[in-house]
Amino acid sequence: MKDYAAPVRDLRFVLEEVLGHTSLSLPAFEETTPELVEAVLEEAAKLAGDVWGPLNRVGDQQGAKRHADGSVTTPEGFAAAYRAYVEGGWNGIGVSETLGGQNLPEVVASAVQEMLHGANMALGLCPMLTAGAIEALAHHGSFELKATYLPALVEGRWTGTMNLTEPQAGSDLSQVRTRAVPEGDHYRISGQKIYITWGEHDAAENIVHLVLARTPEAAEGNKGISLFLVPKFLVDDSGALGERNDVVCASLEHKLGIHGSPTCTLSFGEQGGAVGYLVGEQGRGLNHMFTMMNEARHKVGIQGIGVAERACQHAAAYARERVQGRLSKARGGAPATIAEHLDVKRMLLSMRARTDALRSLALYCAGQLDIARHGEPQERDAAQALVDVLIPVVKGFSTDQAVEIASLGIQVHGGMGYVEETGAAQLLRDARIAPIYEGTNGIQALDLAGRKLQRDQGAALTRLIEHAEQTARALRDEPALAALGAALDAGAADLRAAMAQVLAQGADPARGNDAIQAYATPFLSLAGHVLCAWQMGEAALKAHRAEGQDPFYRAKLASARYALTQWLPVGRSQRAVIEAGTQCLDDFFLQP
Amino acid sequence: MKDYAAPVRDLRFVLEEVLGHTSLSLPAFEETTPELVEAVLEEAAKLAGDVWGPLNRVGDQQGAKRHADGSVTTPEGFAAAYRAYVEGGWNGIGVSETLGGQNLPEVVASAVQEMLHGANMALGLCPMLTAGAIEALAHHGSFELKATYLPALVEGRWTGTMNLTEPQAGSDLSQVRTRAVPEGDHYRISGQKIYITWGEHDAAENIVHLVLARTPEAAEGNKGISLFLVPKFLVDDSGALGERNDVVCASLEHKLGIHGSPTCTLSFGEQGGAVGYLVGEQGRGLNHMFTMMNEARHKVGIQGIGVAERACQHAAAYARERVQGRLSKARGGAPATIAEHLDVKRMLLSMRARTDALRSLALYCAGQLDIARHGEPQERDAAQALVDVLIPVVKGFSTDQAVEIASLGIQVHGGMGYVEETGAAQLLRDARIAPIYEGTNGIQALDLAGRKLQRDQGAALTRLIEHAEQTARALRDEPALAALGAALDAGAADLRAAMAQVLAQGADPARGNDAIQAYATPFLSLAGHVLCAWQMGEAALKAHRAEGQDPFYRAKLASARYALTQWLPVGRSQRAVIEAGTQCLDDFFLQP
Repeated sequence: MKDYAAPVRDLRFVLEEVLGHTSLSLPAFEETTPELVEAVLEEAAKLAGDVWGPLNRVGDQQGAKRHADGSVTTPEGFAAAYRAYVEGGWNGIGVSETLGGQNLPEVVASAVQEMLHGANMALGLCPMLTAGAIEALAHHGSFELKATYLPALVEGRWTGTMNLTEPQAGSDLSQVRTRAVPEGDHYRISGQKIYITWGEHDAAENIVHLVLARTPEAAEGNKGISLFLVPKFLVDDSGALGERNDVVCASLEHKLGIHGSPTCTLSFGEQGGAVGYLVGEQGRGLNHMFTMMNEARHKVGIQGIGVAERACQHAAAYARERVQGRLSKARGGAPATIAEHLDVKRMLLSMRARTDALRSLALYCAGQLDIARHGEPQERDAAQALVDVLIPVVKGFSTDQAVEIASLGIQVHGGMGYVEETGAAQLLRDARIAPIYEGTNGIQALDLAGRKLQRDQGAALTRLIEHAEQTARALRDEPALAALGAALDAGAADLRAAMAQVLAQGADPARGNDAIQAYATPFLSLAGHVLCAWQMGEAALKAHRAEGQDPFYRAKLASARYALTQWLPVGRSQRAVIEAGTQCLDDFFLQP
Repeated sequence: MKDYAAPVRDLRFVLEEVLGHTSLSLPAFEETTPELVEAVLEEAAKLAGDVWGPLNRVGDQQGAKRHADGSVTTPEGFAAAYRAYVEGGWNGIGVSETLGGQNLPEVVASAVQEMLHGANMALGLCPMLTAGAIEALAHHGSFELKATYLPALVEGRWTGTMNLTEPQAGSDLSQVRTRAVPEGDHYRISGQKIYITWGEHDAAENIVHLVLARTPEAAEGNKGISLFLVPKFLVDDSGALGERNDVVCASLEHKLGIHGSPTCTLSFGEQGGAVGYLVGEQGRGLNHMFTMMNEARHKVGIQGIGVAERACQHAAAYARERVQGRLSKARGGAPATIAEHLDVKRMLLSMRARTDALRSLALYCAGQLDIARHGEPQERDAAQALVDVLIPVVKGFSTDQAVEIASLGIQVHGGMGYVEETGAAQLLRDARIAPIYEGTNGIQALDLAGRKLQRDQGAALTRLIEHAEQTARALRDEPALAALGAALDAGAADLRAAMAQVLAQGADPARGNDAIQAYATPFLSLAGHVLCAWQMGEAALKAHRAEGQDPFYRAKLASARYALTQWLPVGRSQRAVIEAGTQCLDDFFLQP
């Protein structure tokens, strides 16, 4: 059996049936036919299943290694697998043609990303970071910087990094101390950055670091921070690689998971200063970085879903083979695989339903990204407003759930799950980073409840809730699905009520920020459950209509039924949590 | 700062104030004064904090090692720390005086166990298994076996193991194939056992294996299995160690966590058969094993609580020191430690409240164990009935929650939490085994909903619910706590309703077992939340009355308030899950 088979059918069900291929009707994608999408998914599935997937465990066992000269080698096979990805033209699939990409819709690019992360999350991080660098450069780089760096980044011959964190500056980037001193047409960068994903490696010819740093005499805090491009190898006017820049990998982190992904401490300027180029405006570094961060957050959500899918497949494969105990007498009493025991089946269905739901919401968000970029002018802002609200949910909720799903995957295996050779434990170890990086999930919750919701007074989220209510009506119109409609309606009502409370709190000038902080995480959890339930309501409608045709739809309907009746209630409990208020937080203090 | 400081004050709050030292009023413990208990806790805290705790990380990094001759060495310092424990007389504290123990109440022994597991879970497993062996021998061993083996086991000079699992026999022990062939006054044992905790090591002179095996011509299935004692070194009549028995460690597992604890594959009889002695009756091996299993399950719950406590301390210590961002303007706007950010404070309080609640329920259960063993004859059965219902809850719920608490501990650390050096990741890796061993938490749920609940038609659980309702009334009588009373009442009503449904299902001869299987895990979760909330209601009453005296009580009241208003709602959602029925499970099938 393959370690991982890309879920092409499941992805197509979401893209074609649940979402109705909305992105393909945009004029920008008139060449993107459903047949082309299908072919892209099938080809990506081969790369993911045949090339990247089999290296997942090797990557975990060998890890990335740093040598005395500061060079880093990635696990056996990683560099070749990355080359296969580049040579297949995968790196630029979602990039616009003007930048040398293939201009496929974000929904399709996201589906491909999910496969690659499911196959090999540690390796998938490399192009994920490159995509962020492309985004930042495309939006904010000068003509010259773009001309010099974008083609190789889009192709994937060079990779990109994001250099934000320093020991004293994690979630609070205003504390960044790395210095950038002007010198002619460039700057000299010096300082130390930590947690730099794929900051040094042997899989590409050059690495393009995007670095937050402070210019001399810049203001304190956020406004003194600018964004710089610092290549590993300097690039001459012809595009040829020149001498090594003054940036070295000082160490690699010893991490819980994603061992195949080198997480570097990078030292800039130990030999007098690394050559760096200003990207965008001076003092606007954080803003520019957040351009790429927003989409990177969507990709981290997708990554969580990829690992969750792998955990589903891995647990189901074991459960289908492992025989323990017998069926009940009512079911014939024969020896049974554990998949037939209802308590195990519940775990498998819980994993499957949540993964299906998270995938659908993340791809819906990708579709809105397509409209925000390529829709009719009057549609764009509305789509972007939905994206703004959805991204913290996709990032925060998908990754929290992915950790739980991977942990359930261990549980399905029993004692075998705790033994590393089985591979279930690796999925939990890998998944556990996703709620932390690209903004912790607490930061996502504050972004949702504090920033996005307050900014438009809940207008965008209200539109999503209205969509959910519409779906609930359609479910209620189908007698067989009426209970699902009632469940979704109840969830939507809870989300409306909680939103009203969070908005009312936000209007209180004295205590508003604190109250929002206290409620943010329960609110994100409630929003995630309800919006996922909405997507599963849509899935139920589509699966119900097609049910007679193919057992696939019966499984999808069971998955939707689980999500709406067995999973949504857990999220709904967060309304009570928010309404109970925060006195306990006010009263609590840490005993010294 | 110490890695771990045993929570003596918190434990005393539960033992003295919440539970009112019920066990000490039993005649069997008339010599056990509150002062003695206090002194025991203080001394245990020194051993845990000063000796065991500092070895936790060393144990993780070095792990246990097997050598070519089959011998196993434990991490540096483990053998000495175990000796300190034995020399301090700790191994026999909960064992009755007739067996050479100190006859302290189970509540006190449990409190000490929590400290030791919090300090060093991998090392704590060694005496935990010995305790199981003592229990099985004391109940079922012949006079000669007891005379030969019990004194050294009680003292801790020898350690014990439980040999149940074989590759094909995990949760389903009826599949055990290990053979026991009679030969004179003993048997010759041959076969392979896996996942044997502390199955071979260098920390004690001898190891006493309790082994499930099948006698020739025994019946198929459970009834053909007997229990045997197989010492590592044979013991002569004088009690001196003789030759090495025919049992070797064939390999160690490479596990996600508890690296310091050697998890062995043991081969019995490669040289013709290991000498083994029948314990109890032939064909009753599983029953005898379950005698020790039940209490071992309580201890695994306690173990989860120990790790959860360590995670609380570890996260709080980091959060108190790490400065990021600023307070809100309403709170003065100064640079803040992350512990002051309400979203982080929520995580810390969530960890603390759950740990407090789980501890209180587990110690309540220990108190009932004391009454079941030492109470007035007419009280014993009633207490045992409560214990029977509580043990699957304490094991299943505490360990599931411990995993979540340890995972939250990582989240509090942000990026640092993912780096192994920080130590937060180890706690998740260690905790993750507890929902699996001593009967997976799925097995615990089936034991609760299928066996314990059906056996007495919910009588014992109803008594616990009545206690909770009484506590709710007392809370409602205190105006400041009325909201907590209402929350607890609502939870109790949910548990009553769910119990009625599970009992009604159980009465259906055709589908009963299947329905119970499907509901079992949600039911255990609901029961765990409500029973923990009851304990926290009691804690709130005690803390409220004492609040003026000491800020400690204000923190305990906040912890109780969180548990009742912010955590209980999540558990209450499981009523809706149970009431929604299981159609989705019936419809779901795994795609091949």
